[in-house]
Formats: sequence, C-alpha cells, structure tokens
Amino acid sequence: MKIAIIGGSGYTGAELLKILVGHPRVEIAMVTSNTYAGSSVCSLYPQFRGECDLHFSKFDHDAIKASAELVFLAVPHGESMVYVPKLISDGLKVIDLSGDFRFLDTDVYELWYGKNHTAKELTRIAVYGLPEFNRDLIKPAQLVANPGCYPTASLLAIVPALLAGLASPDEIIIDAKSGISGAGRGSSEKTHYNRRTDNIAAYAVAGHKHTPEIEVHAGALLGQEITLTFTPHLCPMSRGILATAYLKVEAGLDVIVTDKAYRDFYDGEDFVSVLEPPAQPETVFVRGSNRAQIGLALDKRTDRLIVTTAIDNLVKGASGQAVQSMNIMAGFPEKLGLEAIGLFP
Amino acid sequence: MKIAIIGGSGYTGAELLKILVGHPRVEIAMVTSNTYAGSSVCSLYPQFRGECDLHFSKFDHDAIKASAELVFLAVPHGESMVYVPKLISDGLKVIDLSGDFRFLDTDVYELWYGKNHTAKELTRIAVYGLPEFNRDLIKPAQLVANPGCYPTASLLAIVPALLAGLASPDEIIIDAKSGISGAGRGSSEKTHYNRRTDNIAAYAVAGHKHTPEIEVHAGALLGQEITLTFTPHLCPMSRGILATAYLKVEAGLDVIVTDKAYRDFYDGEDFVSVLEPPAQPETVFVRGSNRAQIGLALDKRTDRLIVTTAIDNLVKGASGQAVQSMNIMAGFPEKLGLEAIGLFP
Amino acid sequence: MKIAIIGGSGYTGAELLKILVGHPRVEIAMVTSNTYAGSSVCSLYPQFRGECDLHFSKFDHDAIKASAELVFLAVPHGESMVYVPKLISDGLKVIDLSGDFRFLDTDVYELWYGKNHTAKELTRIAVYGLPEFNRDLIKPAQLVANPGCYPTASLLAIVPALLAGLASPDEIIIDAKSGISGAGRGSSEKTHYNRRTDNIAAYAVAGHKHTPEIEVHAGALLGQEITLTFTPHLCPMSRGILATAYLKVEAGLDVIVTDKAYRDFYDGEDFVSVLEPPAQPETVFVRGSNRAQIGLALDKRTDRLIVTTAIDNLVKGASGQAVQSMNIMAGFPEKLGLEAIGLFP
Amino acid sequence: MKIAIIGGSGYTGAELLKILVGHPRVEIAMVTSNTYAGSSVCSLYPQFRGECDLHFSKFDHDAIKASAELVFLAVPHGESMVYVPKLISDGLKVIDLSGDFRFLDTDVYELWYGKNHTAKELTRIAVYGLPEFNRDLIKPAQLVANPGCYPTASLLAIVPALLAGLASPDEIIIDAKSGISGAGRGSSEKTHYNRRTDNIAAYAVAGHKHTPEIEVHAGALLGQEITLTFTPHLCPMSRGILATAYLKVEAGLDVIVTDKAYRDFYDGEDFVSVLEPPAQPETVFVRGSNRAQIGLALDKRTDRLIVTTAIDNLVKGASGQAVQSMNIMAGFPEKLGLEAIGLFP
Repeated sequence: MKIAIIGGSGYTGAELLKILVGHPRVEIAMVTSNTYAGSSVCSLYPQFRGECDLHFSKFDHDAIKASAELVFLAVPHGESMVYVPKLISDGLKVIDLSGDFRFLDTDVYELWYGKNHTAKELTRIAVYGLPEFNRDLIKPAQLVANPGCYPTASLLAIVPALLAGLASPDEIIIDAKSGISGAGRGSSEKTHYNRRTDNIAAYAVAGHKHTPEIEVHAGALLGQEITLTFTPHLCPMSRGILATAYLKVEAGLDVIVTDKAYRDFYDGEDFVSVLEPPAQPETVFVRGSNRAQIGLALDKRTDRLIVTTAIDNLVKGASGQAVQSMNIMAGFPEKLGLEAIGLFP
Repeated sequence: MKIAIIGGSGYTGAELLKILVGHPRVEIAMVTSNTYAGSSVCSLYPQFRGECDLHFSKFDHDAIKASAELVFLAVPHGESMVYVPKLISDGLKVIDLSGDFRFLDTDVYELWYGKNHTAKELTRIAVYGLPEFNRDLIKPAQLVANPGCYPTASLLAIVPALLAGLASPDEIIIDAKSGISGAGRGSSEKTHYNRRTDNIAAYAVAGHKHTPEIEVHAGALLGQEITLTFTPHLCPMSRGILATAYLKVEAGLDVIVTDKAYRDFYDGEDFVSVLEPPAQPETVFVRGSNRAQIGLALDKRTDRLIVTTAIDNLVKGASGQAVQSMNIMAGFPEKLGLEAIGLFP
Repeated sequence: MKIAIIGGSGYTGAELLKILVGHPRVEIAMVTSNTYAGSSVCSLYPQFRGECDLHFSKFDHDAIKASAELVFLAVPHGESMVYVPKLISDGLKVIDLSGDFRFLDTDVYELWYGKNHTAKELTRIAVYGLPEFNRDLIKPAQLVANPGCYPTASLLAIVPALLAGLASPDEIIIDAKSGISGAGRGSSEKTHYNRRTDNIAAYAVAGHKHTPEIEVHAGALLGQEITLTFTPHLCPMSRGILATAYLKVEAGLDVIVTDKAYRDFYDGEDFVSVLEPPAQPETVFVRGSNRAQIGLALDKRTDRLIVTTAIDNLVKGASGQAVQSMNIMAGFPEKLGLEAIGLFP
Repeated sequence: MKIAIIGGSGYTGAELLKILVGHPRVEIAMVTSNTYAGSSVCSLYPQFRGECDLHFSKFDHDAIKASAELVFLAVPHGESMVYVPKLISDGLKVIDLSGDFRFLDTDVYELWYGKNHTAKELTRIAVYGLPEFNRDLIKPAQLVANPGCYPTASLLAIVPALLAGLASPDEIIIDAKSGISGAGRGSSEKTHYNRRTDNIAAYAVAGHKHTPEIEVHAGALLGQEITLTFTPHLCPMSRGILATAYLKVEAGLDVIVTDKAYRDFYDGEDFVSVLEPPAQPETVFVRGSNRAQIGLALDKRTDRLIVTTAIDNLVKGASGQAVQSMNIMAGFPEKLGLEAIGLFP
C-alpha cells in the first residue's frame, strides 16, 4: 500500500516514518514538510542515516492524490481541517493525528481548542481510532481521528471498569505524567533541557484540552455523559505516559473481580497487558513499543479503584496507534510493523 | 549549641551534616554510623572534601551524653525507639527523623510499619515537627518527631483548605511524585540508574505507610477523623516531591477565596510561597532549599480544588525541617543555616 | 536455526532475546540463568510481557546439545571458558560475549583480567567477531569472540586511518564515554540512580581491561605492535558509547583525504555511516540500533585527526554485533533481525 | 560594598544573584536586563520567590555609577566591550564574565570570536581572574576578565605539571565534558530536552574559542608558547565540567612525584582539592559549589599523565569565581559567600 505523510518533520511524523520504513506492506510515496521541503529526512533526524533516503517535499494535493492510497496527517491542530476535506472528496483514506476530527460535536472542539471548525460536515464520518474499543468502526472508515496520547492512556485505564459497572462515572480523577516529547519538537524555555531535567510540574491544570476528549469518548462507550478531573504533569523523561486513574467503587468490591473484568475486556488484544496485582506498570518497559501495560489496585479503606496505564506517548499514544488503525483498514495483521519490544535498559 | 547525629551515613544524615556544617550557632560534636565507623565523612560523601574533617564513630550513648545537648536521629524506622528512651531520660533534646514517634496511637504505627513499638510511653511527649502547624508545641518540646517527606508536602497542601472549611475532609486524593533519593542510599535493582532513568511508576499503591501519617495529623489539626487515598510515584530525578492534592469543594467557590485562605494561612512564614494562579510550582525551583511552593487551581466543572506542593524531599521533607525545628527549640532565628536558594539550573 | 543463550538474565542476554525474538530465521530453544532458573523472562524483564513466554532454565549441557545448533554465551568473564570447550568439542557453534576468547595470547588475558585461562587451546580457533574487519574469518568460524563495547567503538574509529597510513600508530589516545548500562545489571553504590544522574567521571584510568583488546586487534590488522592510552568515563545515560580518538597525522593532511579513506573503507557496510564533516555523531541517534556513526575532524594547528564514533553499547557494542556474526556464520543476510532504527526522541 | 550586575537574566547572572543575595558584605544595588526590564527576578527565576524582591532594570550607566562601586558584566561576548570603557573611565571596578578582555593580544580575540575589538586599549589593564594563579594581580586590578568555564577546569588541570617541569608543553590534549547549562539559557533545537537527554556528542571539534584562552594563559604562566588540542562535549546533565587532560611525561616518572607537585601547588587553596590516587573527581560532588576536585593517574605504558578536573561550570567556572575575585579585590575573606557544599545527591 502506498501512503503519504503530511507534516513529517515533527516527532509524530518521524515516528510514523520509523515504523513505516520497516513495515513490509507499505511504501512511503511522499513525506511533506513545508518548513523543511527539499531537506533529507536524515539531515533533520540523523537516526535515519543509512536507513531511509527520503526528502521532505512541499504539500501538494495533486501529487499526493496521484501517488498514495492512504494519507497520515501529523500537522498541528487546526491545519488538518484545511487539508482533509479535499483528500476525502478525492477518495483517499485518511488518518489524522491532530485533534480536529476527534469530536462529533464541533462546539466542544471550538470551546477547548479556541478555533473555528471549518470542516464540520466531516466529523460525522470520522471514527475515533482507538482499536481496542472501535475496531469494527475503524475497518471500513475513510477518516480516522487518531486519539490523543493522554486520552489513549486514560481511556484504556477507565473504560473496562465503567462498562463492567464496577465504578461510578461521576467521581473520576485522572492524574497523568508525560515525558517531554509530548510537548513536541518546538524549542522554548519550557522544553529547554535545564528547565525540564530533575524537575516535575503540573500544567494546564483544570484546563487541558484532552479533558473533553476523554469525557466524550468514555461517555459515548458508556452511553452516559461523563465529567471528570484531568491533570497532566511534565516529567523528566523523553517518552512515556503514566495515567493514574482514581475511580469510586462499591464498598466490598474484590480486586479479583476488577482483575477479571480487565482481563476479559482485553482478552485477545495484541497490545494490552493487564498485570497481576500488585504489579505496577512502568513507562520504561513500553518505551518504543505499541504496548499498553495496566496495573490495578483497590484501596479498600476508601473504596477507590486505582488503575495505572503506561504507554509510549509517541507510539501507542500517537504514531503506532495510527499504524494499528491503518493495518485494520487495509486488512493487514494488526501487529504488522508494530512488533518492536520495549527498549530497556 | 553542640549536637550529635546518630546515623549519619544515609542521605538524610549527609544532608543534616551539609546544613549544620554551615550553621553559625551549631557545633557538630559527633556523627555516628555503625557501618562506617572510623571512616571520614569525605570518603563516603566526597562533596565534603575540604569542608569538613569529621569521621563517623560507633554509637556510644555516654559519649553523646557527654558532648551534645541535642541529638538528631537519622536511622531507619524501628531503630530510633531503641536509642531514644535513654537519651530522653538523660535529659537530651531529641529530633527523630524516623517514623517511630509520629503516632500518638502506636496501634497505627504497628499496623502500618509491621513492628512492635517498644517505647510507647514516649509518644505522648513527642511533638510532630511541622513548624507551620505546630510551632508553639515544638518550642518547648524535648522530643520532636520530624515528619515524613510525603506528609510534609501533602499536609502543607491540604490543611489550609480543610481548616478554612473550604473543602470536604471526605474525598481527598493525593497523587505524589518523588525523586529517587526518597528511596534512600541503599542499592537494589529498584534504585539502579538504568531502571529509574526515563521511567515513572507508582508503588505501594493503596498501602504506603505515609498514608496514616497524613490522615492522623490532618485529622488532629481539624479535630475530625480523615481517611484518604494516597499514591506515591517514583520519578526520574534525584530530589524533589510534587504532591498533587484533589479536594472536593462547594459548587461556586471562587479561586480568589481559596487563594486568600492559603495566603492568610502562610502569611509570615519564612519557607512557604503561595503562587498566584495559574502559576504552578516546579520541584527544580526548590531543589536544595528548605522552601515549599504551593499552586492552586479550581476545576469549576467538577468542583475540585487542586493544590500542588513542591518541596525538596531531603530538605523541607527531612533534614532542613529538622534544623528548622532545632532553631525553634533553641530560640535561634528560624531561618538560620537554612538560607540556601534553590539550585536552578 | 535453533539457538541457545547461556546467561540470559543480564543486559546483554536480554538484548539478545529482544533481537532474536524478532529474528525471522531463529528459534530460541533455551535461555539459561542459574540465578533465575524457573522464572519467566517477563518477570525479570517486563518489556517482554505479551511478546515472549520463555522461562529461564538451569544450565544443562546435554539439553543445549540436544536442542541448539549455535550457542550465545552472555556470562561474566571467566565463566565462558568453563562452558565453551565442551560445546566446541560437541560440534556446536559458539558466539561468546565475554572477554575469555578475545586474546590469542592468553598471557595478556591473564595479566589484565587477573584470572588463569583454562581453555588456552581454543584461543587459536577463536575469531574476533568484528564483521567490518573480520567478515571472511567469521563466516567459517566455530568459535567467535564477540568484541567488547569500547573496543568496537574504538577500533571502528582508528583502524581506517591506521590502515590507510594516515596516522601514526604511536601516539593514539582514546577518550571514551559510556552509558550506565555498560556497568551491567548488578546493583551497587556506583550504579545507584542518585550517584550517576547529573554526573560524569572517569574510572579505571590507565588500567581498563579493554585497553589491550584495542591494542591487540588494531595491531593485528596493522601488522605492528600498538600501545595506546584509553580512558573510559561513565556518563548519565542508559545506553550509548562515544569514543573520541586522537591520532597524530602528517602536517598538511587534508580532511578530504581522511574523509575519503573512511568512506572507502566502510563502503557497502550495512551498519556504519561516515558523516560529512563537520557533522558529529550523537549517541541518541544510534540508541537501540546496530549502527555506528563516525565523525571526522582535523586539527590543523596540532596535526591531529579527531575521530568520534557513536554506538549503542548493548547492540553494536554487544548483542547486535553477536547476531550480525551469527547471520554471517549462518549465511543469512547480515542485517536480518537488525533493522531497528535509532530511538529518537 | 554596593555592586551592580549588567545582564542578569542569563544563567551566570542568576548564579551571581544567588551567591550575592547570601553574601554578608554585599548589597545588590541594581541588576539590569534590557529584555526583561520591569520584570521581577522571581518571575524569571522562581527559585528566588521569598528570597529576593529585585526587579530587572534597563541598562543605565549613570544610575550604575551613582549606586555601585563594582560592576559584574554577564552579557554576551562583544557586548562587554561596549559598556566597560565608560565604567572604567568613571573609576568603577569591573569584573567581566564575557570573553572580551581575556586576551592581551586582540588579534587572537578577533580571529577566534569573529568580532572587531573596540576597546583594545583596555586589554593591557585587564587581569585574568583565575585566583589560584593570579591572586596578586587581581587584588589591585580595576578590570578583571573572568575566565571561561572550560579554561578554568583545563588550566587547573595542566598548569601545575607544566610549571613543575613534569610534562611537555607540546603534546597536550584536553577532552572536556560539559553539562547543558554551559550552552546558556537560549532555547534551540540543540538545547531541547529531547535532544540532549540520554545523549553525548562532541561539538566545535578543533575550533572551540576556549582553545586559545587555555593556550594563552598556560603559555603566559609558563613563559612559552603552547598549542594544544581541545575537544568539548555536551553531556546530559544540567551542571558540571569534567576536563580530562593528557600530558606527555618523561619515562619512569612516579605518580608520587606528580601527586606532590599538585599538592604543593594547591596547598592552602580554599577551593581546590587534589584527590589521592586512584580516586577520581565526579562532577556531582562539586555541583553548586565553588570547588574544584582534581584526580591524577599515570599511564606508565605510554608515559602519559592523565589529570581530571571537576568543577561546576556556573560557579567555579563562572559566577563563583567572579565573586572569589571580588572578595580578593575588596579585601574580604576569599571564601565569603562561597561556602556552599556540593549538592549530592
């Protein structure tokens, strides 16, 4: 299958390239970057030396249409909705890694993203690309909205308990910790090595735009509106998200019941491991892999279920999950090209 | 004032030495370490080369009694209660950095620490050494139980809101992140560089022994029993704790009200800064200092107050706070010897 | 091809497993660890959860002989020579990652390793497994001595200039920097997170046992005895070696000449990239890959050629190179199973 | 003594503030930053919250002249020479942390810094502010050129051996490793957390502008021209420089002789520790302190003396050394305000 990547110069673009260069059924027809057009991928990302001789090109709709069947967009929020309508109307399949098509209700998008949505008609055909929940919808989709990194970790943590009726949808708190690559390739005082090393801090407290994404998609699966508290933190590591979710449960619930619910839910999944209590996931063990590891603990003194999920924010939290959806859409084995085992140490 | 340090070879012992070597009113009469007796402090902690020519000696009660007025204990939980009774009966002042005297009710201690308490009669005279709450009790105390690192950060975060009646004592969740020095100087697979770098993980979920310490002392200040959920995480940094506390508040509460409550509460404190919303504390800005920085945010959608507190776990979370109590007990200015400004970058 | 790994619980053993689990022509018949026999690989290395259900077994020569054609040894120096003779006499192919068979002259081994060599007769058949120099000898070998991590980086840096006659073999200095995984999985005060983070230090100055390995194998290729200075440093990163080699050259030498010599030498190599001056290699760009990147600079003021080589110490510096030799020995494409691109960010 | 800081917003400016806020004999009359004029120091450097209520002001010569006796310049190379002439002619004492006045011969400056020197007449009165070598010249100086970070570490390493005639001045190689704060506060792709973490690389190979500074000042002390090779590396830590110097010695030299030479040379120095072989300095043990630690090793096989020096690049390598010179100029005890012990862990 021939694919194109629009916006290949950011971290998620580079991660898509890394995965797809090694994918046995994919040919990368084109990778665009308006900023770096003409430069080799290797000059920007020296890890590709000797492995890939692609060059970035300027965005060119006709060239993409002529050469690719499926297009990944790894551009900032607000840019995807500029490119996607024409790609869709020309019959291309699209996987969008931005937030532009993650909300059926564009009012939510406009409120949290502070932008006018200019392709509202397409949100109805967009499928939220979290295969563990939406595999059947992804398969025939033309437009997949790839989930955010925090929502991926958070939804994998809370949905099984909610759907099993084990936890209340009313008192959910998610405290998430992310590596610095989540802040992207852009340089600023906030991403400077000296500011971030040996340092942890919360940010966007009570206002992060991944909050409604978690609420809307957990709510859609549960058939009920959900409002929750979500707090992200920046942690001194390059990759990885750990989401620590606090759920209120009935008094007397046994950890064996929750354990079984999670095991049943993720039974047969290629990329999700439910750990046996009291084991806890650690981000380093999924570094570089598309895997999620989930830990469960029950605080019987306060009747809270504490679910922790570790993912690599750039793989399962972005580009790996996008390729997982591509595999589903193309009828390839879901794990194809995604066999990398976590890099530890 | 002449002081002695029992158990000077661990990180909190070394931090006590670092602070007290520079304290203008203190003379270090003796520092003991049964493991390293005879070795110079410099051989174990080369940062003291040229700054301190002390040697570790074996514990010797009589020698301490003969040479010191006040004794710091920086030994593991369970060891302090062996040494303290005789020190007390011989009239020495004692500041204990272990958990042995933090609970009036030794049943709680025995349950969470898994040890028999062998000096129960002393818990009645022990004062919990958190100066911002207990200054008047610390001043005349003979025995001060220095707080744990997580409880210090957690109590500084939640107590003002609870005492002001702004938050419910019933639905408190504290999600805390600590640097690796919190795990101590001991070597194990869990503290190996390669295991901890680029990695975050929760541990002791729903079972960390600092949980009852937070509950008991918040409860004592509030005059009400408190049960809460506390989850610690290990974060890839050497020092620092960030406690993120989630408190349930009345609908419609204004952030200005909470801001005022915290500012009033900490007015005049040398070591606590309440940041103006939406500023958030970062651990690197208190690294090496005795300062706590506190951030406030109100999630109006869920009526939760989110309070974040950053401290250096070895200073305000251990040895600095112990010296702060010593200053109070000795009638010195509270900040004496504790003037270090956070080391950034 | 069926293979066995003896000593699979260390970092190089785990890295062998990681590579070989994904190798399309290899079946792992057995992985031994006397310490962890009976445990699953996943319990020790959670990155394998869902990817590998192997268990460690006790070393058993007959079981290995019955099930494997080729054996990797990832045991400490001094242990390989206990196992290898019987494996060789039973006709198995052997790739040894220890230092035991890297020296034809066992006096050198005994001097630098401080051990009696108990399998001296085998050093004559052992081939030093650095494919870029010894490919033709590796192909038919029964016993391959896999190079050390520092020697791999160092030899890749200095050999082309020496063989091209561009640099004097008499005044070589190699200043090398390694990540902490080079110190192995063992826990000690020296590998504690708090000791190593934010810290760099030299160690084993003028006495590291990789010194004679570099000298002997550079000398063998050049046909001349070489004595050099080698200084290793521990650097706060998990993986990676950067070797900075200083070579004395004739006055007036042009960087274009050295550049051409290195390009010619490594022409056609799958795993070596010679960067165009003034580009410099960075370890992060080869993290997790079997690639070496080489940078060249000429200091015309002092007539010194400065060659820098970056590798991943666990891949090209250990397990990846071992698999590269296995591929050569088995007639597989040399890159098979070694396609991983460097993990950046 | 009243002092002013010109250019207080960079890392060296902030470190000057940190030291001088705690200096008992200094009053900070003014700190300028044209970029941040009007902002509080705390808003840029939150570690000063509660410790310092200074605000940055625009540069104003007359205001400085009216309020200060001594001026520190912590501005970029090329800016100091704009401000300094008028400060000098108005009788103020000046300590300049830039490279502008480190060379008597401004041709060297112009060649390596690529700038025209516009205050050439002042280089004759400028004293190179390395107290361990130039104390007597610093005392009466009006203009002190504070040394660069790499030259400080390098000169402390090589000068004693050269002056004692133990090493040849002709074959010196210095391989230096620096933390990222050496690259300054500016944000770029090169200082991004994700680029620098878990990564080491050489830069400015054979062309770093600290090279002639080392050569000129070692040469001046030795009374002989020196040309050497200097290679800097960026290492994933916030602070610290380790310089590894390779010196050629006579065959048969004993390490005891070199050890004695270094001990004699630094006898009585407040800030230099010569370690007993085979101990090696580690940067973390001088983190945050003005101390240098020096390690010695003799490679008898190659007749090379390997001297390693660890300093904190922002303290002994910049602002601490500047205050050390200020103390000398003002007749204060040399250690005043510089008592901080290295922050470990």
